[in-house]
Amino acid sequence: MGFWNLKTLMLEEFRPGIWSKVESGSNLTMALMEISANREGMVHDHPFDQCGIVIEGEIEMSVGEEKKWLGPMETYFILAGTKHNWRTLASSAKILDFVAKQG
Amino acid sequence: MGFWNLKTLMLEEFRPGIWSKVESGSNLTMALMEISANREGMVHDHPFDQCGIVIEGEIEMSVGEEKKWLGPMETYFILAGTKHNWRTLASSAKILDFVAKQG
Repeated sequence: MGFWNLKTLMLEEFRPGIWSKVESGSNLTMALMEISANREGMVHDHPFDQCGIVIEGEIEMSVGEEKKWLGPMETYFILAGTKHNWRTLASSAKILDFVAKQG
Repeated sequence: MGFWNLKTLMLEEFRPGIWSKVESGSNLTMALMEISANREGMVHDHPFDQCGIVIEGEIEMSVGEEKKWLGPMETYFILAGTKHNWRTLASSAKILDFVAKQG
């Protein structure tokens, strides 16, 4: 709790192809996630906002009708209730993700 | 709304010495803030969590009894109700900040 250095933070396997480290408070969750190449999520939505920033690599984010490849120093913002998904191709991606709910 | 590139995002003066760009949903607010050198906040707390990542420069974050100088790729997490503050010295700092409340 408190401070992370993303260059040295140790991650744990969250599910096949995804490693993560999560910190939660009463209503906000921050997660560093490293996603392997050639992975894809499932389209879904939820009743809370989500956003984040790409730290390394490239990831495609689909938010509503928009799809965009994001690289380092690019951010996404997904409004509550908006269908969204992600995928990686040739490179893995490390993202710092934020959701406004208890973790 | 949607996607930002932090390298090219235009900021607006928020108050003297601080420029920002803010995006809010129903319960999450993301803000890129650029803070000039030699500035200091006021100790305060609020009933929602706050966290963020340093993008450029250096900033000292005080969270409860802890004080830490943070640089690029370092993050902070402030639990709801915890007193906190920030200050810059020789360098300005650009931070991407997240709070779990409506903006």
